[in-house]
Amino acid sequence: MKKFIYLFTLIFIFGCSKDTETQSEEDIDKDKTYNWRLVTSWPKNYPGLGMAPERIADLVEEMSDGQMKITVYGAGEQVPAFGVFDAVSSGAHQMGHSGGYFWKGKVPAAQFFTSVPFGLTADEINSWVNHGGGLELWREIYEPFNIYPIPAGNTGTQMFGWFNKEINSLEDIKGLKMRIPGIGGEVLKEAGGIPVTLPGGELYTALQTGVIDATEWVGPYNDLTFGFHQAAKYYYYPGWHEPGPMLELLINIDAWNSLPNHLQVIIETATKAVNQDMLDEYLAKNNQALTELVEVHGVELRKLPDDVIDEFEVISNRILEDLAKEDETIAKVYDSYLNFKNNVSAYHQISEDAFIEARNK
Amino acid sequence: MKKFIYLFTLIFIFGCSKDTETQSEEDIDKDKTYNWRLVTSWPKNYPGLGMAPERIADLVEEMSDGQMKITVYGAGEQVPAFGVFDAVSSGAHQMGHSGGYFWKGKVPAAQFFTSVPFGLTADEINSWVNHGGGLELWREIYEPFNIYPIPAGNTGTQMFGWFNKEINSLEDIKGLKMRIPGIGGEVLKEAGGIPVTLPGGELYTALQTGVIDATEWVGPYNDLTFGFHQAAKYYYYPGWHEPGPMLELLINIDAWNSLPNHLQVIIETATKAVNQDMLDEYLAKNNQALTELVEVHGVELRKLPDDVIDEFEVISNRILEDLAKEDETIAKVYDSYLNFKNNVSAYHQISEDAFIEARNK
Repeated sequence: MKKFIYLFTLIFIFGCSKDTETQSEEDIDKDKTYNWRLVTSWPKNYPGLGMAPERIADLVEEMSDGQMKITVYGAGEQVPAFGVFDAVSSGAHQMGHSGGYFWKGKVPAAQFFTSVPFGLTADEINSWVNHGGGLELWREIYEPFNIYPIPAGNTGTQMFGWFNKEINSLEDIKGLKMRIPGIGGEVLKEAGGIPVTLPGGELYTALQTGVIDATEWVGPYNDLTFGFHQAAKYYYYPGWHEPGPMLELLINIDAWNSLPNHLQVIIETATKAVNQDMLDEYLAKNNQALTELVEVHGVELRKLPDDVIDEFEVISNRILEDLAKEDETIAKVYDSYLNFKNNVSAYHQISEDAFIEARNK
Repeated sequence: MKKFIYLFTLIFIFGCSKDTETQSEEDIDKDKTYNWRLVTSWPKNYPGLGMAPERIADLVEEMSDGQMKITVYGAGEQVPAFGVFDAVSSGAHQMGHSGGYFWKGKVPAAQFFTSVPFGLTADEINSWVNHGGGLELWREIYEPFNIYPIPAGNTGTQMFGWFNKEINSLEDIKGLKMRIPGIGGEVLKEAGGIPVTLPGGELYTALQTGVIDATEWVGPYNDLTFGFHQAAKYYYYPGWHEPGPMLELLINIDAWNSLPNHLQVIIETATKAVNQDMLDEYLAKNNQALTELVEVHGVELRKLPDDVIDEFEVISNRILEDLAKEDETIAKVYDSYLNFKNNVSAYHQISEDAFIEARNK
């Protein structure tokens, strides 16, 4: 089967390259119609995350007056959830929608373009990527994979998650079996916990049967539909591990270069609009869902104790610094990210943070 | 002169209505080219605020592959800064870029769609407008003026501003001559201060000669270019009076209805992308400018004392409640706004605010 995919990929690339490699801007037929495939890491039409690619596709079709149609496939329909990057890289599919931190085995620096513990919030990562040099670095690190990335959605600060064990001190982290992927999981492990990897669909049962003590997912809107409140006692915050995860639209560079300029601008602009729209929607729906969780289902909200958060932050920073030592590319991205974070934190403290503090009193 | 404008407007509306009133979707020529005029309340190419309409125009022209060209005029070039609403309403110009609170004499509820003291931040107003029922209300209140509004940029939380008098208690507000427009000015007045209205270009001299004791403007990025740090001693925060001002693109409804669907979607999407882009740019540049103000120019940052902020909040809420009593439309908008604010504040406290608090420690 793998051989077949490889062969298919080669044929596809060869088939494409005839069109694209020799193509100059004048050669591009501006009126040609395009039918593209977009593969994603989410179940088809999954609320929030999964609706972003559908909205991008709709906007592109409407703005191009039907010149470009994009068909969106859910995870597993064409490629597995975590096969998106390779499928776009090879050109087997022209587009993908996913999260950069899934490719950490291949492109470790990609994690900074999704979210890292104690990192940037949604507004801050938007600003770093679009006006702070982030996007140029992101495109540079994906270019060897023949992929052109565009920021494509953000859930906002996530919740730490659902727990059947109280966390009153660092002692309670020891031995805690928690579903938490990525760097967040590494932090938990160093603090004495046991990070577990499980797909979303298995979490409810795992919580209920005690296979895990805790799980993170997204936030009230997505969590409510999974019914986690029926399987866990406490809902902990804040989501230190994913303060503002940014999703990504991936485009095969040969396919991208084959498009006339107006379709490229249409795709970039549609995606930028959806990047904001997802955050707007999550904020509105998370706040409705939280009210329902607390007022209707009596969910108990708990704040993680200060000493636990402090220890998580110390470990997180150490892990990121070690990661940056692995190679020059990671170091360059980390340096840009950290520099922006330090400056923007200082500015936010006297602007939005100070305002929020005054308003919350 | 006024008569002439009136006559011109009538002729224009009549001239337009021939095309538009009888027009059904099938009648619209999809390939017709459009040359529109966009009047603004900002100096031509003014950093931040003034660049938004230019970017919208560029995106529309590129995405429509030249089918639609929009020429942007600075304040005073075609109509005065505060003549934008009327110019679009009458159809004298198809589009405008401005801020809703400038029309408070005509549409008092419009202020909620820009910013009110102790109101919504940038993310929150985006969410209320796009997913919390705000946009429907906004379009309803502008419809009698024949205007279709689209959210079109946000500066983020502003600074309280530049002061030559120290503010250590409420006593220091008494007699304070400060340039501060809108509801913020009303609040200052009730607290014993003297709000002054002056255009941006006169503020530096007014500060330097002592005509005013203080002025608000935007934030570090715009304030630095005006050189206020050379005319004032202290830079106060937070900007309780404008926590997340949203700007607006105004479109004449007859002109809007004359467009084919794909150009309407192009305009909506370009504007949505620019709405986010302005915030991203302000955040990145404000944080650079703040560093320069503090490190190079030695600007002294001061936080407004708690009792002063508390009193401002009490007065602000009373003024907004009184405003809501004026008529049913304002009451309906205020109710939706306040309801969203109360819920979203509660949600933000356990998500982004709690995260920021942990990160800032």
